[in-house]
Amino acid sequence: MTLEGKLLIGQEAVSGNSTAINAVDPSTGKTLDPTYAGGSKANVERACELAEAAFSTYRETSLEARAAFIEAIASEIEAIGDDLIERAMAETGLPRARLEGERGRTCGQLRLFASVVRAGEWLDVRLDPALPDRQPMPRVDLRQRHVALGPVAVFGPSNFPLAFSVAGGDTASALAAGCPVVVKAHSAHPGTSELVGRAVQAAVAKCQLPEGVFSLLFGSGREVGAALVADPRIQAVGFTGSRSGGTALIEIAQNRAQPIPVYAEMSSINPVFLLPEALQARGKAIAEGFVGSLTMGAGQFCTNPGLIIGVKGEALDAFLKATGEALKASAAQTMLTPTTHRAYQEGVERLSNHAKVREVARGQAGDGPHDCQAALFATSAADFIADASLQHEEVFGACSLVVECTTLEDLRRIAERLEGQLTATLQLDDGDVEAARTLLPVLERKAGRVLANGWPTGVEVCHAMVHGGPFPATSDARSTSVGSAAIQRFLRPVCYQNLPAGLLPEALQDGNPLNLSRLYGGKREG
Amino acid sequence: MTLEGKLLIGQEAVSGNSTAINAVDPSTGKTLDPTYAGGSKANVERACELAEAAFSTYRETSLEARAAFIEAIASEIEAIGDDLIERAMAETGLPRARLEGERGRTCGQLRLFASVVRAGEWLDVRLDPALPDRQPMPRVDLRQRHVALGPVAVFGPSNFPLAFSVAGGDTASALAAGCPVVVKAHSAHPGTSELVGRAVQAAVAKCQLPEGVFSLLFGSGREVGAALVADPRIQAVGFTGSRSGGTALIEIAQNRAQPIPVYAEMSSINPVFLLPEALQARGKAIAEGFVGSLTMGAGQFCTNPGLIIGVKGEALDAFLKATGEALKASAAQTMLTPTTHRAYQEGVERLSNHAKVREVARGQAGDGPHDCQAALFATSAADFIADASLQHEEVFGACSLVVECTTLEDLRRIAERLEGQLTATLQLDDGDVEAARTLLPVLERKAGRVLANGWPTGVEVCHAMVHGGPFPATSDARSTSVGSAAIQRFLRPVCYQNLPAGLLPEALQDGNPLNLSRLYGGKREG
Repeated sequence: MTLEGKLLIGQEAVSGNSTAINAVDPSTGKTLDPTYAGGSKANVERACELAEAAFSTYRETSLEARAAFIEAIASEIEAIGDDLIERAMAETGLPRARLEGERGRTCGQLRLFASVVRAGEWLDVRLDPALPDRQPMPRVDLRQRHVALGPVAVFGPSNFPLAFSVAGGDTASALAAGCPVVVKAHSAHPGTSELVGRAVQAAVAKCQLPEGVFSLLFGSGREVGAALVADPRIQAVGFTGSRSGGTALIEIAQNRAQPIPVYAEMSSINPVFLLPEALQARGKAIAEGFVGSLTMGAGQFCTNPGLIIGVKGEALDAFLKATGEALKASAAQTMLTPTTHRAYQEGVERLSNHAKVREVARGQAGDGPHDCQAALFATSAADFIADASLQHEEVFGACSLVVECTTLEDLRRIAERLEGQLTATLQLDDGDVEAARTLLPVLERKAGRVLANGWPTGVEVCHAMVHGGPFPATSDARSTSVGSAAIQRFLRPVCYQNLPAGLLPEALQDGNPLNLSRLYGGKREG
Repeated sequence: MTLEGKLLIGQEAVSGNSTAINAVDPSTGKTLDPTYAGGSKANVERACELAEAAFSTYRETSLEARAAFIEAIASEIEAIGDDLIERAMAETGLPRARLEGERGRTCGQLRLFASVVRAGEWLDVRLDPALPDRQPMPRVDLRQRHVALGPVAVFGPSNFPLAFSVAGGDTASALAAGCPVVVKAHSAHPGTSELVGRAVQAAVAKCQLPEGVFSLLFGSGREVGAALVADPRIQAVGFTGSRSGGTALIEIAQNRAQPIPVYAEMSSINPVFLLPEALQARGKAIAEGFVGSLTMGAGQFCTNPGLIIGVKGEALDAFLKATGEALKASAAQTMLTPTTHRAYQEGVERLSNHAKVREVARGQAGDGPHDCQAALFATSAADFIADASLQHEEVFGACSLVVECTTLEDLRRIAERLEGQLTATLQLDDGDVEAARTLLPVLERKAGRVLANGWPTGVEVCHAMVHGGPFPATSDARSTSVGSAAIQRFLRPVCYQNLPAGLLPEALQDGNPLNLSRLYGGKREG
């Protein structure tokens, strides 16, 4: 498939006319063709106009039609074949196996949302029947369903060119909810974005949906992104990226005449608590698991374990020794972009130069221009608590900080000082359960996901997943951006009171024609 | 019961030391004792400190203990007896029957939330079992429940001194979610607030809960209210009142180091669409229903029908004539506060002086200093569309505007121009169903509740209710402030990955000891 370097607006491919970008192969530093000229305000407006025009039809597609459309997107992505993997490899420096896995995840995620659409739990149907004889006042018939919010703007990050990008989780969940989507492509992987965008376009056409269900814009966040979030037709925003990027979009969204929700997944250092018995019994295995999680994908995951907390002593020393050895053996890996690499280098340098932080080990240095050399540092609990910057300044990449505590009680104190996180991890054995019981209520308040005896990287796409968490991990702790509950971000409830049967939406009709699970007078049925 | 004029902080009664307020009997203009000295920043901090201290215990109370506590509040409120009704009458000018009804609603609402707590749907339990043999990667055990956000600040309005006030819907739903509550009492009914606050205090003590589960503060919104929303321990805000008041709190909440959600129910003019067949067949009955809804409680409801839209012609003329006659016969009623009355007078005058608006009728003028004289105005569709102020400036009270359309198509055009609303109403007969079908998708996007052949005043407290709607009706269209779904505002999901059985919360344990409805692998169980 030949890349054209054009914006995809509805079914059209349109040339941009503002600042152009090219992808860069981070393993070589070389510029990749084609050039993607950025969109104009008129392009943004056209995409939003089409999205708005498509909304009334799309939001009332049947469950089956909508599910089939989402499945068609998955099939179209698979049909691109190896061109997609090769282009993504060139644009991101990520290895083939990782990208093939990510494609599988992306298509699996789409198919999960298709099944979620069909199951209809997201409609959250509630029926309160009329009570004509109730005293002192009769009750009329009241029914509730959820409806789509409206057109959604999606901004993906650089680190998942497929699973969190053009047809990633935000797009899949918004489309599942019945919302047209306008994606602002990440400038680090425009070619991958174009390929996937064309796949979505093809699915829209095959399913005979209104063209505005999907558009893909290229351009700068400051111009195209800001105009998109400010457009009055956009009703919600999904964003994954930096704290500064998320904060900027939130501000635009709040200053609109009609403010809208922004679901921004921003930053997290994902604390891991090493409880004493576990550390004693299997410190070496934990060290190996840790280094594997830390260096996977050059550490470029929002769930990368950036903070390790344990109690000083022989067991922690042994863990540090084992970790250091494993880290020293870890090969350098290409980072996603020159910018990511520069920010990583600066972050590592900041820690290196910090008076209260010592270096434990570095990974192997690489030959490439944008290679990530892993790094592990250590500090004391007191110093960590005294300097908030040690947790506020996430170093995105394979860098982590070990906090050495004096007592087990320090672990809780550290936990209480933490900002909001995507995840919190416990390494524990049977003898640690009581210590974990003390930590757990604190961690539940700090993180969207609490895990035991595993590593936070690897976010399962399922029904129970929460990839979210209190600010600044996300802008809205009441939501998740991974897993089937992500659909709820793009819905709102509507109550229908005393509506004639002929006007009731199918989901609310007597006889339950869609065979939905419903709350009838507060009791679960079906 | 003797009123003391003190802040209720945990189990203490504390004298304030900032600007004092007294209630005013709006029917006489006379000041009521005692004086309520406003709280200080230290009082706010103490209430929040206690709320935070109570949170870890309160959020993990058993479903039964929490439900029993909420029921105990209802019983304690009933135990106040007639003192409560008399004080509320003096502070609001509302008639006895209305306040007795509102007390019933308030206690019924508390008991509904107790039943909601017991049923446990709010936990939204999801289990995805481990799949150790899955290829290419095994899946670990993942479970999700919802947990309470943390201490909640509640601000009630003047117009429901019981049902939306100290132990009203926001407090009931926050307590049901497991959140301690700090209420900033409305300065229009401090005595009523103290009585109810003492009832909640008594229930806290009887149920042996930590005292910080509930506090009640008096003082100005600018001082006490702003400090409360800014306090880092507060995790969400429930507000009912004016657009300017809600907007001010939202701004404070967004500018915190950690922004928090504000559920502000603000303004709505609640359009009513008169479809031709219904208007033709029963214009007079509709007129009577309309005037009843418009003048009930001096029109001081957020769901008051402030906008009527119909097609010009004989039937609409007859409706206007019947409405005018009924309105002229309607007695004046005391408004809630001197401020409310002044704002109403100004709003009516604005319409009176508007070049494109004509007066249809006025109700009877009253003798009292703060009586509401009902008012009905009319304008054309073109003039309504041309001047946005006609819908933006809600006149709180028994005032409504009729928009005369030229064609049925104008109804849809008007609907599309509307801001977000709490409700939208259709008056329709069988012959109007097709016209309604065209309007319905527009109204669904504009309002939280769509009703047919009724009036928007009267908000049923049930499971299917949505008392919410797009901005500016509320600040968060994804929520409701009335009905059992209101509990969801104060919850967030947490995922537990691979946790040892001994650490799992009861709601998530194997064997389903709480007998909850759960999603198991995406399928509904129980």
